[in-house]
Parts: sequence; C-alpha cells; structure tokens
Amino acid sequence: MAQKPSIPKGTRDFSPQELAKRNYIFDIIKNQFELFGFQPIETPSFENSDTLLGKYGDEGDRLIFKILNSGDFISKVDDITYSSKNSTSIAPKITEKALRYDLTVPFARYVVMHQNDIDFPFKRYQIQPVWRADRPQKGRFREFYQCDADVVGANSLLQEVELVQLYDAVFNSLGLKGTTIKINNRKILSGIAEFIGAQHLLVDFTVALDKLDKIGEAKVKEEMLGKGISELAIQKAAPLFSMSGNAAEQLNQLEVLLTDSEIGLAGVNELREISNTVTELGLKSANLALDVTLARGLNYYTGAIFEVSAPEGVQMGSIGGGGRYDDLTGIFGLKDVSGVGISFGLDRIYLVLEELGLFPAEINQSLQVLCLNFGEKESLAALKLIGKLRERGLKADFYPSNTKVQKQFKYADKRNVPFVILIGQKELETGKCIVKNMKTGEQSSYSLDTLDAIIDSLKL
Amino acid sequence: MAQKPSIPKGTRDFSPQELAKRNYIFDIIKNQFELFGFQPIETPSFENSDTLLGKYGDEGDRLIFKILNSGDFISKVDDITYSSKNSTSIAPKITEKALRYDLTVPFARYVVMHQNDIDFPFKRYQIQPVWRADRPQKGRFREFYQCDADVVGANSLLQEVELVQLYDAVFNSLGLKGTTIKINNRKILSGIAEFIGAQHLLVDFTVALDKLDKIGEAKVKEEMLGKGISELAIQKAAPLFSMSGNAAEQLNQLEVLLTDSEIGLAGVNELREISNTVTELGLKSANLALDVTLARGLNYYTGAIFEVSAPEGVQMGSIGGGGRYDDLTGIFGLKDVSGVGISFGLDRIYLVLEELGLFPAEINQSLQVLCLNFGEKESLAALKLIGKLRERGLKADFYPSNTKVQKQFKYADKRNVPFVILIGQKELETGKCIVKNMKTGEQSSYSLDTLDAIIDSLKL
Repeated sequence: MAQKPSIPKGTRDFSPQELAKRNYIFDIIKNQFELFGFQPIETPSFENSDTLLGKYGDEGDRLIFKILNSGDFISKVDDITYSSKNSTSIAPKITEKALRYDLTVPFARYVVMHQNDIDFPFKRYQIQPVWRADRPQKGRFREFYQCDADVVGANSLLQEVELVQLYDAVFNSLGLKGTTIKINNRKILSGIAEFIGAQHLLVDFTVALDKLDKIGEAKVKEEMLGKGISELAIQKAAPLFSMSGNAAEQLNQLEVLLTDSEIGLAGVNELREISNTVTELGLKSANLALDVTLARGLNYYTGAIFEVSAPEGVQMGSIGGGGRYDDLTGIFGLKDVSGVGISFGLDRIYLVLEELGLFPAEINQSLQVLCLNFGEKESLAALKLIGKLRERGLKADFYPSNTKVQKQFKYADKRNVPFVILIGQKELETGKCIVKNMKTGEQSSYSLDTLDAIIDSLKL
Repeated sequence: MAQKPSIPKGTRDFSPQELAKRNYIFDIIKNQFELFGFQPIETPSFENSDTLLGKYGDEGDRLIFKILNSGDFISKVDDITYSSKNSTSIAPKITEKALRYDLTVPFARYVVMHQNDIDFPFKRYQIQPVWRADRPQKGRFREFYQCDADVVGANSLLQEVELVQLYDAVFNSLGLKGTTIKINNRKILSGIAEFIGAQHLLVDFTVALDKLDKIGEAKVKEEMLGKGISELAIQKAAPLFSMSGNAAEQLNQLEVLLTDSEIGLAGVNELREISNTVTELGLKSANLALDVTLARGLNYYTGAIFEVSAPEGVQMGSIGGGGRYDDLTGIFGLKDVSGVGISFGLDRIYLVLEELGLFPAEINQSLQVLCLNFGEKESLAALKLIGKLRERGLKADFYPSNTKVQKQFKYADKRNVPFVILIGQKELETGKCIVKNMKTGEQSSYSLDTLDAIIDSLKL
C-alpha cells in the first residue's frame, strides 16, 4: 500500500539548514524595509481569476495555475461548450480562482479595494510565494518567493533615490559589497524610439536592446531588422550601443542625441536628478550606473527602471529589479495613482551569498546546548536545568531517550551543538553538572545552584 | 473597462495593523519553538494529488483544492470518461496537484523522503498556510495558517511533558495566563470501549463523547444509542460522565474502572507519568487537567491527546491541540516511527488576545520618526539626517512631497508617529533641526551635528 513519496516538479522542500539561510536573508531585507518606513501586507494565495487573467499577456495567462471548482464542477458546463471538448473554452467554466502569479497585481487590487483605509503615500512591502506553470529548469521554479517594496501615491523622484539607497542598505547588510544598481528610464527609451522614427516598435526595440549583454550588438541589430525596424533607424541608434563615461557624462551624451524629443529629455532630466541626489547622499557599497540598454520585459513601467547585478566575477542574472509605473491601479478603476517599487530575487541572492561564502557561520547553530540522558531520575534534574536555561533565552534541549552515551554524543555532533551538559548518577548525588565544550573537549563541573556560572560557561 | 475588485470568499487581505499583531504572535511562538530545540522546515504549497487524497477521509478529499493541469488538459480525458460528464471521474484526469490541507501529511511525506538526511529524534516546526474548500463562515476560512511542532523518532513520554511545557511557555509569553491544557489518552478511550464491550464502535463512541461539553449528557447518550451502542454499555460508561477531583484522583478512579483492560491501564500509567513529571517541574501560568471526554476528531492519534482552552470567561473553541501518533509515516512506507506534536490556532489566539487587550501598545508603531518636507534644498538635509537615523536602527521616514505642513502633520498623526523632525529654511541656514513630540506638543532645537542628542530626544 505504501507510496513512494515525491513532490511536484518545480517545487521544493526546505530543510532546517536551508531555511536558516533563507530566513537570514528575509530578516535582513525585512529589517531594512521597516527602517525605510515600509509596512507589510499580505494578500490571499489565490485571487478571483478575473483579477489575474489578462494582466500578464497571453504567455502569462498560460502560466497561471487555475484552481478547479469544488463539488460537481462539470455540471456547470453548458452542453455546447462541453461538446467542443476544447480546453480554452471549458477552463473558465470549471475554474473561478487562480494562484497569484506575482505580488504586483494583487497589490494594485489591494490598494483599490482598501483605498479608503490607506494613508497615502503608502509604502508597503510584501514577501510571499508566487506560482507559475513554467517549464521547471535549473534556477526556475514553479513556486518561489517574491520580495517587493513599493510606494504608491507619491510622484517625487526622491522615492527613486530612496529605493536606490534601500538596495544599497540591504546588500551592504548582507555583506554583498560591490553590487551594481543599473538605472534607466522608459522615457529615454521612448525618446530613442521617437528619434529613430519607430515609436510603434518601441516594445520590439527595447526587448531586442535588452539582449545586448547576452547576444551582442550584431545579433541585436539582426533581431531589430527582423522585427521591422529599418536599417536607417538602427544606424541612427548606433551611438547608444557604445556610450562611455560616468552617469553624468552619459546623460550629457544622451541629451545631445535626444535634443528633439520632449519625452526623451524629460527622462534625461529625471535620471540626472536621481543620479545627482544619490551621489550627494552617498552609497555604502553599491555602485549606481546608467545603462541605456536596460529595458526590462514588463511593459507597465513608465519612468525609472532599476536592475541590480551581483559583484563582478559572480555569474548570475539580475538579483533585483523594479521601476516606476504611472497607472498600475487604473485596471481596477483607480486612476492617477503613481507607484514605484523594487524587488529582491531571493533564490539568486541565496546562490550568490553561498558562492561567496557570505553566510555567517553561526547560522547553522540551531541548538546551543544539549543535555544528555542518563535515566529517569537524572532526567528530572536535567529537565529542571533546561527549563531555566530556556527562560534565560538559550536554545536548549534534552536527549529524549536513555540510549548509549556514544549515540547521544553523535547526535550532538550532527546537530552541531557547541556544548553538552552531563548529569549522571554521580553528579545527581552531589548536585552538580558537567559542561563539555564539544570543540575543545574541555569539561568543567558546576553546582546546579550556580545558574549564572553555568550560563557563562556556555559562551563561545 | 475597470473591474470592481474583490477577493475569493473565505480568504483575507491583511493590513499592516493586522499583520503587526499576527507577526507578534508568530514571533513569540517561533522563539519558544527554537528555545525548545525545534527546527523549521517548509514544504511546497501544492503536493501531488496522491500524496494528499485518501488521507483525510471522504469529507477531507472533498475539501481539498485541486489544481487544474496546464495546457490542453481536456485532451487527456479518454472519450468514455468524458461522455460520462461525471465530475468525480473527470477530476483525476484533469488535475495532478492539490493545495495542502494540513501540515501533518506533508510532514510525514517529508520525513520519508528525507529520512537519510534527518538526525532522529527530529524536532521540526512548520508555520505555513493551508487551504480547505470549506463553506466559509465566521471564524472559518478557506486559507489559514497552521502552526505545528512535532517530534518524530522518540518514544519517551518526556516529549509529552515538554510539549505541555511548550504550550505553557508560549501562552505565558503572550501574556495569556490561566489557559487549561486538557490531556487524555487514546488508550484510555480504547480501554473504555473494551470495558463497555463496544471496541468496534470506538470511533462513534469518542465522537459522541467529544460533544459532552456542547450538547450535554442526555444528547450524547442519545447519539450513542443511535450509533448502535447498547443501553447497557452506555450505562456502564456512566461514571465517566461525572469524574471528579484533580488529575491524580481521576486517574485513580479510572484505574479502578479499567482494571480489566490492559490497554486502558497502559493509558492510565502514561498519563500518570506525564502528569507527575509536569507537576514536579511546574508550569508558569497554565493548568494541566485530565479530561476523559477529550477525544478529538482525528483518528490517527494512538497515545496522549492535548487540547488547550482559553482562560475562563473567554468564549472560544480550543486554541491548540495535538497528540501522539504511532504510525504517521507508515502510509509512505516508513514503519515504526512514532511522533507526537501540538499545534497552535493562530486565528483564535488572535481573537482572544484582542478580546483581553493583550497586544502591546507599541505594536502599532510602524514608524518612529517622520521628517517633514519643506522643499528641495531642505529635503537633502532631511534625507542625510534620516540616513543616519536608519543606520542607528530607527524606523525613520521622509514625507515625499512638499505639500502643506498641515497635511504632512495629519499624515504623521494617522501613521501614529511619536516624533516629527522639521528642517525648514531657517533651520537649514543655521544647521539645525526641530524635534517635535507629537503627543505632548513639546519641541526642541538641535544642531544637525549632534546626532546622539537628536537620537536621545526621540526616546519615549
């Protein structure tokens, strides 16, 4: 009868060791979010299908997990639809709910639903899993956490400045120094499209431009041609493929190039203000870099765009991204609410910290002291001591069965416990305990009445 | 085009104020779990359907949310099944995954899958949402968190003792004093069934007995009769409906009653050992009470059973429950692994703390200081100061737009900020800032260079 158990492809179990590392990252991010004045919200794992469908394009709709209606779901399908035996027509009749695909659309829905209870500007953060019916592959999962901070209802560019500082603060606190926060502006991209005379092809242009790092200039140009962007337009855009100098210098080059584009110049001015203010305030360990090839896939950004790359030498896609979107809540009926936000790529940050050995060693210490088991009477004395240690904030445990001492020591080793306490028959009779340092092998005897001395002896 | 947004019935959005309270409870529970040596794991939100189905009875299967297969799901249904237009036969052909219904079955699956990496005894905790397609009603949701601590691979009754202590430690840390931890043992219930000559009706007997508090003795007897338990058997069981005295006294009465039942006496002895050890070690503020009518719905418990009720005077169902199960992992092919665990009912604990006013006041303080906005130049000075405050661990924010001061103060009020900092033109010129206590209205001026003095002034 026994099943050989497995989990669905693209999903993961997290062991205590993995969770300790994941929570280390989450805790640092949360702490910085809160220092920056962001407040947490949570939304349901599934939303009404019509909240999600149509928001992520056809490809997105395909990747949304749908939840089968409960009960006699099939009886709700009319005969004509049923006789078609067509998945696309039947699906909406037998599902009404879907697992969230990201945190942004549920957040927009939240803002609109609760607009009367929210004090704008509203700085919210949200750390919850999302689900995508993507083909699983290395580093791509069907369930993964997103970790977003957004501000809605504030137009000031100081928000962008603060988000750059927030990235810097988080990565610096994680010990991940030398990240690059790449910045661009959709208005500059629009300006470039205008300038090359291909406004209607902006999406194709930016998607192709976005691949510059990966496939090189020649292939990008080829893709642009394939999408119907003219040879001449691409030629005009050529200077963009090889801008040089620091952000201020590049912005000056762009200003010349985009001199006839109102929207393009607006983008240049926004970036200049953000860049100048960030420079004036200073960053701890990140670098801010203008990257006109930065486009990001999503089409809802309207202003600044961010993307963070790991320190040089680490092979890894972006570990964070975001931007400003002027009309996120419009789809739910609330117009003119501007938003700007960033997100952190937890799984990739985890891999980078692992690769660079940046997780603190003490993360793996789930237990500070283990008391061994020498029988019934001794157990009672041990449990009393453990109770006192826990009250004083020590993670303390007791080996639950009176097995061979060797086996108990082996467990202590595996649990990576730095100290072991022994209360055997002799100790019990004299009211003492022995504290053994598992690393050095040293052991000392203490009276059970001298709790402070025992606690002192448990410090590394 | 705008949709009026809503969320699926039985699900909830959590606002920052609600989350602050929920996280307050989670944090205290987690902290105690870790002090007691438990380690966290996480499992995927959805499991393969065959992992979940058949584990919770027919009613449970009905309440499990199934996830529709992606792509052209309907083409996988053979024509004969399809022509039946029968939901029960079609469902398994179009779904392979299901949302988890509880944390216990996924944990059993986890233990079996990872048995070679686990150091037994394994003390794990898990705090994750579960989903049930239940009819939503007051206090019953389709998505809610479970919060479980279990020990597997340890037969010692000291585990039960520790779990009682864990309940006591958590509720005491939450300020919820005077809870009652009710305890019983399935073996006693089996002994009673033997004694009344109705072993084969044990489930019916215990389900009926469980309702004693709610529907009274007469109706319980009626239900038992209805289930085919004889008048005579019920008569023999009568003394159980009115046991008296403390735990030790009740156990003595039970011992007499169950004198001919081997399993019954084993249960009495187990409870006596647990009860004596708990008494010897002492509890902080909870009471341990024997309750022979305590049966709990689930059938997999084989030893001790726990249930916690709120302090007297609070109308609320149980706020926690658990017990020992001897063969949880057997369904997945791993025999003879005993487990014992408890869970905390977050939503009910939340309501109890709310009712008794036990949430600390400072929970609502998401921001410690807000700096007002007086224009571009002043902003830069303000942002510099805020950066320093955040570095020192203060939750500090800046009002993002230069609107009327009154509006900014109103925002500060709504955010419940205790202190506001003002750097206007005059302050900027003299290198100063004004700190205003929002409660008393007092304000003092500080040099921007004296960070320590400013931070001191921000203490309540």
